[in-house]
Amino acid sequence: RRNGFPEVIFGEGKSAEQIAAIMKELSGRSSRVLATRVDAVKAEQIVNAVEGAVYHSAARAITWRKSGLEAVESAGYVAVVCAGTTDIPVAEEAAVTVEWMGSRAERIYDVGVAGIHRLFARLEEIRDANAIIVVAGMEGALASVVGGLVSKPVIAVPTSVGYGANFHGFAALLAMLNSCAPGVTVVNIDNGFGAGYAAGLINKNRGVPAEH
Amino acid sequence: RRNGFPEVIFGEGKSAEQIAAIMKELSGRSSRVLATRVDAVKAEQIVNAVEGAVYHSAARAITWRKSGLEAVESAGYVAVVCAGTTDIPVAEEAAVTVEWMGSRAERIYDVGVAGIHRLFARLEEIRDANAIIVVAGMEGALASVVGGLVSKPVIAVPTSVGYGANFHGFAALLAMLNSCAPGVTVVNIDNGFGAGYAAGLINKNRGVPAEH
Amino acid sequence: RRNGFPEVIFGEGKSAEQIAAIMKELSGRSSRVLATRVDAVKAEQIVNAVEGAVYHSAARAITWRKSGLEAVESAGYVAVVCAGTTDIPVAEEAAVTVEWMGSRAERIYDVGVAGIHRLFARLEEIRDANAIIVVAGMEGALASVVGGLVSKPVIAVPTSVGYGANFHGFAALLAMLNSCAPGVTVVNIDNGFGAGYAAGLINKNRGVPAEH
Amino acid sequence: RRNGFPEVIFGEGKSAEQIAAIMKELSGRSSRVLATRVDAVKAEQIVNAVEGAVYHSAARAITWRKSGLEAVESAGYVAVVCAGTTDIPVAEEAAVTVEWMGSRAERIYDVGVAGIHRLFARLEEIRDANAIIVVAGMEGALASVVGGLVSKPVIAVPTSVGYGANFHGFAALLAMLNSCAPGVTVVNIDNGFGAGYAAGLINKNRGVPAEH
Amino acid sequence: RRNGFPEVIFGEGKSAEQIAAIMKELSGRSSRVLATRVDAVKAEQIVNAVEGAVYHSAARAITWRKSGLEAVESAGYVAVVCAGTTDIPVAEEAAVTVEWMGSRAERIYDVGVAGIHRLFARLEEIRDANAIIVVAGMEGALASVVGGLVSKPVIAVPTSVGYGANFHGFAALLAMLNSCAPGVTVVNIDNGFGAGYAAGLINKNRGVPAEH
Amino acid sequence: RRNGFPEVIFGEGKSAEQIAAIMKELSGRSSRVLATRVDAVKAEQIVNAVEGAVYHSAARAITWRKSGLEAVESAGYVAVVCAGTTDIPVAEEAAVTVEWMGSRAERIYDVGVAGIHRLFARLEEIRDANAIIVVAGMEGALASVVGGLVSKPVIAVPTSVGYGANFHGFAALLAMLNSCAPGVTVVNIDNGFGAGYAAGLINKNRGVPAEH
Amino acid sequence: RRNGFPEVIFGEGKSAEQIAAIMKELSGRSSRVLATRVDAVKAEQIVNAVEGAVYHSAARAITWRKSGLEAVESAGYVAVVCAGTTDIPVAEEAAVTVEWMGSRAERIYDVGVAGIHRLFARLEEIRDANAIIVVAGMEGALASVVGGLVSKPVIAVPTSVGYGANFHGFAALLAMLNSCAPGVTVVNIDNGFGAGYAAGLINKNRGVPAEH
Amino acid sequence: RRNGFPEVIFGEGKSAEQIAAIMKELSGRSSRVLATRVDAVKAEQIVNAVEGAVYHSAARAITWRKSGLEAVESAGYVAVVCAGTTDIPVAEEAAVTVEWMGSRAERIYDVGVAGIHRLFARLEEIRDANAIIVVAGMEGALASVVGGLVSKPVIAVPTSVGYGANFHGFAALLAMLNSCAPGVTVVNIDNGFGAGYAAGLINKNRGVPAEH
Ligand SMILES: Nc1ncnc2c1ncn2[C@@H]1O[C@H](COP(=O)(O)O)[C@@H](O)[C@H]1O
Ligand SMILES: Nc1ncnc2c1ncn2[C@@H]1O[C@H](COP(=O)(O)O)[C@@H](O)[C@H]1O
Ligand SMILES: Nc1ncnc2c1ncn2[C@@H]1O[C@H](COP(=O)(O)O)[C@@H](O)[C@H]1O
Ligand SMILES: Nc1ncnc2c1ncn2[C@@H]1O[C@H](COP(=O)(O)O)[C@@H](O)[C@H]1O
Ligand SMILES: [Mg+2]
Ligand SMILES: [Mg+2]
Ligand SMILES: [Mg+2]
Ligand SMILES: [Mg+2]
Ligand SMILES: [Mg+2]
Ligand SMILES: [Mg+2]
Ligand SMILES: [Mg+2]
Ligand SMILES: [Mg+2]
Repeated sequence: RRNGFPEVIFGEGKSAEQIAAIMKELSGRSSRVLATRVDAVKAEQIVNAVEGAVYHSAARAITWRKSGLEAVESAGYVAVVCAGTTDIPVAEEAAVTVEWMGSRAERIYDVGVAGIHRLFARLEEIRDANAIIVVAGMEGALASVVGGLVSKPVIAVPTSVGYGANFHGFAALLAMLNSCAPGVTVVNIDNGFGAGYAAGLINKNRGVPAEH
Repeated sequence: RRNGFPEVIFGEGKSAEQIAAIMKELSGRSSRVLATRVDAVKAEQIVNAVEGAVYHSAARAITWRKSGLEAVESAGYVAVVCAGTTDIPVAEEAAVTVEWMGSRAERIYDVGVAGIHRLFARLEEIRDANAIIVVAGMEGALASVVGGLVSKPVIAVPTSVGYGANFHGFAALLAMLNSCAPGVTVVNIDNGFGAGYAAGLINKNRGVPAEH
Repeated sequence: RRNGFPEVIFGEGKSAEQIAAIMKELSGRSSRVLATRVDAVKAEQIVNAVEGAVYHSAARAITWRKSGLEAVESAGYVAVVCAGTTDIPVAEEAAVTVEWMGSRAERIYDVGVAGIHRLFARLEEIRDANAIIVVAGMEGALASVVGGLVSKPVIAVPTSVGYGANFHGFAALLAMLNSCAPGVTVVNIDNGFGAGYAAGLINKNRGVPAEH
Repeated sequence: RRNGFPEVIFGEGKSAEQIAAIMKELSGRSSRVLATRVDAVKAEQIVNAVEGAVYHSAARAITWRKSGLEAVESAGYVAVVCAGTTDIPVAEEAAVTVEWMGSRAERIYDVGVAGIHRLFARLEEIRDANAIIVVAGMEGALASVVGGLVSKPVIAVPTSVGYGANFHGFAALLAMLNSCAPGVTVVNIDNGFGAGYAAGLINKNRGVPAEH
Repeated sequence: RRNGFPEVIFGEGKSAEQIAAIMKELSGRSSRVLATRVDAVKAEQIVNAVEGAVYHSAARAITWRKSGLEAVESAGYVAVVCAGTTDIPVAEEAAVTVEWMGSRAERIYDVGVAGIHRLFARLEEIRDANAIIVVAGMEGALASVVGGLVSKPVIAVPTSVGYGANFHGFAALLAMLNSCAPGVTVVNIDNGFGAGYAAGLINKNRGVPAEH
Repeated sequence: RRNGFPEVIFGEGKSAEQIAAIMKELSGRSSRVLATRVDAVKAEQIVNAVEGAVYHSAARAITWRKSGLEAVESAGYVAVVCAGTTDIPVAEEAAVTVEWMGSRAERIYDVGVAGIHRLFARLEEIRDANAIIVVAGMEGALASVVGGLVSKPVIAVPTSVGYGANFHGFAALLAMLNSCAPGVTVVNIDNGFGAGYAAGLINKNRGVPAEH
Repeated sequence: RRNGFPEVIFGEGKSAEQIAAIMKELSGRSSRVLATRVDAVKAEQIVNAVEGAVYHSAARAITWRKSGLEAVESAGYVAVVCAGTTDIPVAEEAAVTVEWMGSRAERIYDVGVAGIHRLFARLEEIRDANAIIVVAGMEGALASVVGGLVSKPVIAVPTSVGYGANFHGFAALLAMLNSCAPGVTVVNIDNGFGAGYAAGLINKNRGVPAEH
Repeated sequence: RRNGFPEVIFGEGKSAEQIAAIMKELSGRSSRVLATRVDAVKAEQIVNAVEGAVYHSAARAITWRKSGLEAVESAGYVAVVCAGTTDIPVAEEAAVTVEWMGSRAERIYDVGVAGIHRLFARLEEIRDANAIIVVAGMEGALASVVGGLVSKPVIAVPTSVGYGANFHGFAALLAMLNSCAPGVTVVNIDNGFGAGYAAGLINKNRGVPAEH
């Protein structure tokens, strides 16, 4: 693969054996391998089979990095912001992806629009990041609010958490796409991996944290 | 009509002659008449034909109230909050409806999520209202943010202002319906009248402004 | 929380332990706590763990109020109207929320558009309420009919009950948003809590029942 | 055409010349011809060109019937019920179609859900019809209410009148399809012709008005 | 209930005990009772509890008629047409409803658009009915084809059978609503009962079969 | 371009000058050029500017073929079937594309599901084609009916002709995608060009007409 | 059945007994029978009951061909292209259908847009086919890319593989319908059978592979 | 405004006078001002009224930068990739925004999926950018293809160019959100400004072009 980052395995619908086999093969020719959407039962088998593989249960992801790689290769960090506790698995998929790519991820999970003072309490940390990921299902508004407070790229991840006219995340997706705050881009519903990957690319080589 | 408030005329698709005729007839048996969605050309004709009729051009509405009625019949007021200048016609339709029902409307139009400090600057005025109307097309998030800061009923009006994945206000409608801030209810896209009417009912007879 | 009412816990996707822990913590600094979407199995555990917590099985909600609070703090009442028996769980979530906020809820459950005389038989009770909640899945029309008969704020709750072109409550939601009867506002599909909360805010401090 | 009723011309997108030519040709081999969706300008030309053709401006339809046919061939009648004045063109398309098929159409246009007493005032007339057509855009609820009060087939016609979350009649269409009142069937949005045709088939040969 | 036909019970989401209790109560004051959407397990209990109740397993419906009622009260019949075997349960719900209302139902189940000669083989039987019900999921086209061949009211029932871009019957619903063949009306997806009820109303008192 | 057929110009939104310039340039290095969606006014200018260009007004297309090319290069033919006169422009775009690719197109335009005998009258001609294009807006059923009668590839083109729940061709598109008759594939709404191109590829080099 | 290919059984929702009975009956009067959507458990029973029936587990299909038929009756072949491993079941349904119709199917499964060099590596094989089937869920783009590289008919099959804004294959369906590469037609989501059938018709009798 | 970049004016629905007045006011307290969606007629007036304002007609945008600012403030560049000529206005809005923010924009407009060799011809230029914007309406696939070839952040902009099942850009939006190529994020339909702004933020201070 020309593009500098190794293959990623979409674990859903694959057996533990299949995932382990692909991870082994890829680890032979790549410096890092990631498998997403892996439940705990499969994960145990895979971690046993693939030397050096690590399971992140909250993120439902398995990472493997060549031994000898620095944990953090790039300066600066990515802020991962989320409001509801039910959105945390997607936020974790994003954070683990960022870390696997060699950047630091700062988790800021206790903030939401309905209690906006908690968001303000952590604003400096958010503003100092090189890129910001905002994860929200019922609080699609959070991406707009954060986007209006910072001058860094914001990647919004709608989640399928919610009910009724939320339409499995479609409402949050639309809210984020229509955000008036410039600098906000969006990934697919529940795609924590995609957001983490894009943020990781932005932070990589960024040098020093940019001023706000 | 049993329900204590007089008929309202939906002006769209009716001629000036038709609207004037209905207004005259209704003014004979009712203490107040309202016609919405009336453009300036038709309005001139109607105002000439119907004694006591007043045109509100920003709201595109004509009101008529029996002479002798007090302008403001109820204590307290309704706050009408909106962010973008393009949302103002819908906000005005709401505010004029509130006033026509005998309540005071406080217009708070220069506030938005992308510049949230302007909203905070006017928060006390919003909190002291008996009911709050939030009008927004691209900033559906505004209803959530306001709802999280007050303990009064919030009526959200999505507008059809916007483009692309806004789907003529559908995105804002969904965002508002999914608001996590409790106390927020929603009316149809662009339905300033409906929001004004409901807020007017809430404020009527409310007595003193409630504490927050 | 500035807004005068305490935190509400969305129980779906949280364990009994998690809910109990949050309730305990919140009950330390608030006069009332509510948890919605709690099934009977979890509820038993929580009620055992949290002193003073009460489970409302039809509503699938747990309430906690500081001992010493009056059961009914506000004059007047909220009418909760619903047609089909399958809509009752959502109606109960609304009614229990109203009561938890310190208002009286009058349940009017045996009325529907297809047998409209039953609705008329209870019309006075509906008209004398300070706010009216209408809960309906297949009978979205009910909100329009009630709205046309009263001059009080009506909060409509579409439910996901139905099949086919009902689209899990979307048809009822649209019917309610398009209601011609003024004074009708709408909340998310199945959001009995949201309707109860808004109606509780309207009724609070309202003083005496308003005339119709 | 085997099915006993002659061809019908959909006038939209056809020139006056084309419509006139088809009408002439069809009138040679059929006892009745109908052209729908014809505006006044085209209509004048067509009526001049086709002997015996009659333009119904409110319905935007042209009818032609072989001279010698009885105006009313069937006993009983079809009730055409509609609420808003903006729905009248579709109601008229239905009524004119019914008449062209040789049945009597009883127009009941001043009734709506928001002022339900007017509907009750004319209930006997509605109940005594052999079939009932209900035309409504913003008041989709009307079909359910009527359906619940009668024991005759009800054909509901959603119209594209309305705005916002009405989605050009889609909301009314869904409301009608989900009606709890049995005996209600539905045609396409704005399809007054289709409803009139089906009702005309039902009334034809019905004999005496059925009791209710 | 004024409208001449007794209450119908929507069985989905109700227990056997509840259904049996309602049936008993209704059978005390009505000449016929129907419960739809009842599975075989519940049905056995209900039939044991309610004297005279009959279960129709293919239709998943229970009927009860006062002893002494004629099985067929009206002349003429209703044709129930369907193509795929997977659509049969909905077709049976329609047919059983027709019979329960006192009309004869003629089942014509082995016909489809992809093998159109089978439809033609039974065309006379279809044409001689007083009303025709067409049930189809993947073959929405069937309603148009039948409608073009007869001059009787056609009631089309889309079913949720199918996959992919069928969207659980939405594709068939739209196809039926857009049918060019006049005289076709439509009910909700899978609503065999509604179609049977409307067709039963049409056939009732019709007198002799109408000529085609 | 590797794929053996030259560039096609989508004329919508391009000026006559732009289209003429591209056609001239492409005619220098290709044996055939096609421009679609060109109105009569632009066409006149283009045809004057590009030697050998021919305008097909019903199809709204301009074709250019190198002089010396045979008009018909392949044996066999493509049948282009359509029902309503308003669908003819799309059918013509398909037919002209087929011819421009060097195949014969047989137009069969006077057939529809509502008058199915006309379709049967021309069935042999349809069956003997190497590929069949079915164009329909309100009669989406036509593709299923034709597909059930032939054993050749059928390419269905939904058109945006219709109203209401037709949703600008979406209903026809879904009907065609769900066709039970095997061998039917579908192109975008109004994409006569795409269907003609695919059918032209199928017929090219096909040799003799296949037996049915 | 006039159309030269025998009946196909849609196995979903049918019991093993039902499928076996239909297969036996059809094998009496037809040279080939196919049953799709059959799981392994049912398949074992059917294969035991129907002499000569073969189960293709990856395709979830059962084929039966009269003994004595040549495995491959037509020259040339159909290429079946797919990217993700999760799309393989649908690709196999297509390939098995092609083979059952008497054509050769060339499987090209290890190619995708994200690693486009693998597609280029097998381009000649794809170009030399008489028809190409492209199966993709998350990579709807694949159909456009392939269509732009070949001059043969391409049949695109969207699959329901994916999540979020994929909407169970609707996103891939739309992407394929909007492909700019001419010659691409589309079948229903997951309809491998339909694509295989259409491609089989195209390849049948094609004679020699066409040049590209 | 805290976030380091000045206000941007959405010109649609504002008069030339309004836009000029806002620009003047903002230019007093900010180093750069941008107005988008401004047609040529309004633009002339504005440029005359606001000293230093520059109109970019292809982008329909007006920029103003304080005199003395360097045209290019950041090293590296943003690649703006687009396929169809009709997508160019949106691509230009993106490119002009990038430049106004002080970065270099490299336009790569003659590349598309249907003629993929042209894309490959310019691949190095694309790969060397710090961020890549891909603009496409009918060729939603282009974002996936580019994303698979580079290891830089890709921002995809769906455009409303297209017809039929494109649904005014919704099809392209979905295709881009479902892209399998990691690193792709998406903005609203036609939102060239939003993409340019995000890419400008990414490139700003990036230092040297990153290797691929
Ligand atoms: N959680 C995820 N969400 C979206 N895409 C993913 C995810 N995990 C992996 N992918 C993508 O899926 C592709 C691998 O799919 P597969 O070959 O089925 O394992 C790679 O292109 C990844 O970029
Ligand atoms: N049944 C419900 N429907 C909608 N929102 C709810 C419901 N119950 C609680 N909430 C809201 O959900 C938030 C609490 O979510 P959480 O922090 O996940 O417990 C609060 O803002 C409540 O207003
Ligand atoms: N207003 C209408 N709405 C729906 N269908 C109509 C209408 N008027 C005529 N038709 C149908 O359109 C067909 C005639 O279309 P055409 O041949 O284009 O004139 C006939 O089958 C009529 O049943
Ligand atoms: N009527 C049409 N419908 C769909 N695609 C078309 C049509 N006409 C041309 N095209 C495609 O549009 C592309 C040319 O677009 P453009 O470069 O904008 O002229 C070519 O790939 C054609 O295959
Ligand atoms: Mg910002
Ligand atoms: Mg609040
Ligand atoms: Mg009212
Ligand atoms: Mg009834
Ligand atoms: Mg007919
Ligand atoms: Mg066929
Ligand atoms: Mg090609
Ligand atoms: Mg990449």
